[in-house]
Amino acid sequence: MASSTVSFIIIIITTVLLPSLSSQLSDLFPSNNPPPFLGKHSHPIKQPNHHQQYRYETRYFSQPLDHFSFLDLPRFRQRYLINTEHWVGPSRSGPIFLYCGNEGDIEWFAVNTGFVWDIAPRFGAMILFPEHRYYGDSMPFGSREEAYRNATTLSYLTAEQALADFAVLITDLKKNLSAEGCPVVLFGGSYGGMLAAWMRLKYPHIAVGALASSAPILQFEDIVPPETFYNIVSNSFKRESSSCFDTIKNSWNALRSEGQKEDGLKQLSKTFHLCRELTSVQGLSDWLDSAYSYLAMVNYPYPSNFLMPLPGHPIREVCKKIDGSPAGSSILERIFNGVSVYYNYTGEVDCFQLDDDPHGMDGWNWQACTEMVMPMSSDQNTSMFPAYDWDYSAFREGCQRDFQVTPRPRWITTEFGGHDIEHVLKSFGSNIIFSNGLLDPWSGGSVLKNISETIIALITKEGAHHIDLRASSTEDPDWLVEQRATEIKLIQGWIYNYSKKMKATFEI
Amino acid sequence: MASSTVSFIIIIITTVLLPSLSSQLSDLFPSNNPPPFLGKHSHPIKQPNHHQQYRYETRYFSQPLDHFSFLDLPRFRQRYLINTEHWVGPSRSGPIFLYCGNEGDIEWFAVNTGFVWDIAPRFGAMILFPEHRYYGDSMPFGSREEAYRNATTLSYLTAEQALADFAVLITDLKKNLSAEGCPVVLFGGSYGGMLAAWMRLKYPHIAVGALASSAPILQFEDIVPPETFYNIVSNSFKRESSSCFDTIKNSWNALRSEGQKEDGLKQLSKTFHLCRELTSVQGLSDWLDSAYSYLAMVNYPYPSNFLMPLPGHPIREVCKKIDGSPAGSSILERIFNGVSVYYNYTGEVDCFQLDDDPHGMDGWNWQACTEMVMPMSSDQNTSMFPAYDWDYSAFREGCQRDFQVTPRPRWITTEFGGHDIEHVLKSFGSNIIFSNGLLDPWSGGSVLKNISETIIALITKEGAHHIDLRASSTEDPDWLVEQRATEIKLIQGWIYNYSKKMKATFEI
Repeated sequence: MASSTVSFIIIIITTVLLPSLSSQLSDLFPSNNPPPFLGKHSHPIKQPNHHQQYRYETRYFSQPLDHFSFLDLPRFRQRYLINTEHWVGPSRSGPIFLYCGNEGDIEWFAVNTGFVWDIAPRFGAMILFPEHRYYGDSMPFGSREEAYRNATTLSYLTAEQALADFAVLITDLKKNLSAEGCPVVLFGGSYGGMLAAWMRLKYPHIAVGALASSAPILQFEDIVPPETFYNIVSNSFKRESSSCFDTIKNSWNALRSEGQKEDGLKQLSKTFHLCRELTSVQGLSDWLDSAYSYLAMVNYPYPSNFLMPLPGHPIREVCKKIDGSPAGSSILERIFNGVSVYYNYTGEVDCFQLDDDPHGMDGWNWQACTEMVMPMSSDQNTSMFPAYDWDYSAFREGCQRDFQVTPRPRWITTEFGGHDIEHVLKSFGSNIIFSNGLLDPWSGGSVLKNISETIIALITKEGAHHIDLRASSTEDPDWLVEQRATEIKLIQGWIYNYSKKMKATFEI
Repeated sequence: MASSTVSFIIIIITTVLLPSLSSQLSDLFPSNNPPPFLGKHSHPIKQPNHHQQYRYETRYFSQPLDHFSFLDLPRFRQRYLINTEHWVGPSRSGPIFLYCGNEGDIEWFAVNTGFVWDIAPRFGAMILFPEHRYYGDSMPFGSREEAYRNATTLSYLTAEQALADFAVLITDLKKNLSAEGCPVVLFGGSYGGMLAAWMRLKYPHIAVGALASSAPILQFEDIVPPETFYNIVSNSFKRESSSCFDTIKNSWNALRSEGQKEDGLKQLSKTFHLCRELTSVQGLSDWLDSAYSYLAMVNYPYPSNFLMPLPGHPIREVCKKIDGSPAGSSILERIFNGVSVYYNYTGEVDCFQLDDDPHGMDGWNWQACTEMVMPMSSDQNTSMFPAYDWDYSAFREGCQRDFQVTPRPRWITTEFGGHDIEHVLKSFGSNIIFSNGLLDPWSGGSVLKNISETIIALITKEGAHHIDLRASSTEDPDWLVEQRATEIKLIQGWIYNYSKKMKATFEI
């Protein structure tokens, strides 16, 4: 089944957009269904560790459930992975590389963040992968079932608590190892990149720097235009082929018309080779727009297997299929041929199974319904998706219905900043790399220009979603090799300056 | 009653030391009583606003009880005082002066922080005094009784929540006034100074700078020696008179001996003119050491009425009485004559009433038993107090007994830093003034040297506890006038640089 192999990191971050997209589509298709793919893929996906060089020990650390109150709550076991084989130890101030675990099983992030493993030996660094609370094996209340039972048990699933988990864990670990003098460098991709940047801002005494890859920390409130994300996706198609763009743009009406016909759902199910007959058009349209968004995120210039086995420039290939379908093909047949590149590049899928339980209690969906409120619109002129204006009220009602929780849409910028970020970071922050590939639709909500000598934006024109964090390979294009080399150099600089300052520092 | 006129700001911050002092005294007097003066004076003291020039409007703001979880909790009304009569408004980027309310009624802080009122007009600044949750009129659960009912209702009384209250309030207020471009300057004294410094560190996007007066942000864990506080108190006496120091140092044994005699408590009650007969020596010894500590804090070089009506150089006067008591006076008679300067300078008190309910649910006591764990010891060689080594276990047991809560002694430094503060602040923080008078025993736990060009330590040799925040008067010595002038100049610089940067900033 093609969709089940979609890795959840991108699936999950996509959920921040899908609530709006779902509402958007509900203009076309009067359905109140929340978006698909929410519950399904956020369950820990146990992937085999193909990279046998990634050796780690699995440990657990007892954490307070609420760092910011003194309620008498049960503690929980936070899982973390640790590798010390290259660490040169406290006597030589060996660095500690800490990946800020995000919304999923930490083992999956560990094997998919090869960059950290690749560079640790040359730094003599310890490697730490702490897991984010409420994901993977780090469940409060003893089990996923209990942790996800209701809004009360889920209420401690917040970014601030996760950052405090990292801070408490690393402080304790360093103390136990007499490694207080060892510099900590943070890494993170996507939501994990946001955590890394925020941790550097909020806990500068804990870490000397952060590599925040594809971290859309500005995708809140009105900091960037809400159309940004879908415009980038749309442009990625348009630049390959304007007719491809037009076909997709026209397909939504075609879909609606077909769905309204007698036997229309049956016909659609047949056209799209679905294993089970559609009960509404909603699920199919969600399946399609997910494919477009994911394609934009993984629109790498060489073949990859990040989410799906895909050719290089996958959007180009999709458009080739859409534009090059046999004469007389309908719009929807062209669309099917196109998305098959994404969902069935290897040709092994006989029929496609859409997600049929999008209502599951999902961690990122909870986060999107509480703190991570990222407004998304679709511009009728520039987007190939149906036009939609962000409707916070509808979003809030959906959260109240699904989670019995009311979002705090302005909390993230109050707690972490975001408005006037350039001014704030220039006079205050330091040692953060914001790396982004401009093909990544999330890049529009990230920091795209240098803010100071130490707050650096590394942009790759042909890059997509946090490719720099992946293991190096012989297929890497030059720009990626160069990007990683720059990152290494900057990290070396942080550590060098830290050591220099530590030597020069007098005790107060 | 003399003791009831003691203002609570110093009383309360003293409670961070008294738990240890109490344990210390319990070496001499086997009593498990917690320190006196804890519950009594932390109740809001409604002081008349003598300064009719301090005009403000009282408003209320609805706050989430827990900013860091999404539990479905009742919101509470945070009180804040506001004055806009001098504010030049958003069009001219009028600054907003925000005093970080600390552990007491905000009206009391407003009338005792004349510096802010004095300088606001020349800055064209708005004045804001938000109250700290769980104090004054800002009670969760609708009333003080409900808020202080038990450890569950008290559990949201933390510094992080208070800072988030300030951040949410000022963000909302600025939005409503279209004043997003107006720079916020933070002020605070004592615990309020700690909040101001931490707020600048944690919310640099909210405020452009902080004047943190007498803020012992390093009085945690082993950052400064635990003997620091009592050594400073003791030295303040020793520098006036070594015989005075010796008399006090010897008095504890005298007190114990007397208390163990038949009719000893009766005799002690008579010697010290107590209104009611002592039931143990503990209360009396606590009353004495409180006086010494407070005297050191308010050891101003000119007559003042901060906590008590006192002469200039009050410790000098105390020692004059101790040393100059009639020949043949006993140690305890000398001590009584000495502390009468503190408790009865006006001579209006006929008898002294010791606190008789030190067990009350008190806000600062809760904070000291949860986050604000400040280790205190008394060195047998250098301190005039009984020797005592900080005993965390005993402290923890006391907190578990009194509040059914277990302290987190390492949390404050994890959350806010403190170790290697110089290094961290140098490379990260900016625009903080740490002002301290070296006579203040809390100065030993504060930042006493410049860390960078913008993290400035302003030290006055003859200054005591946050005198700089008080209203200017004709009696101010030159060094105080100069100190305030420097503070004004630095604040002007913050605002000037902010305006300059705002003009030069491009939107990202």
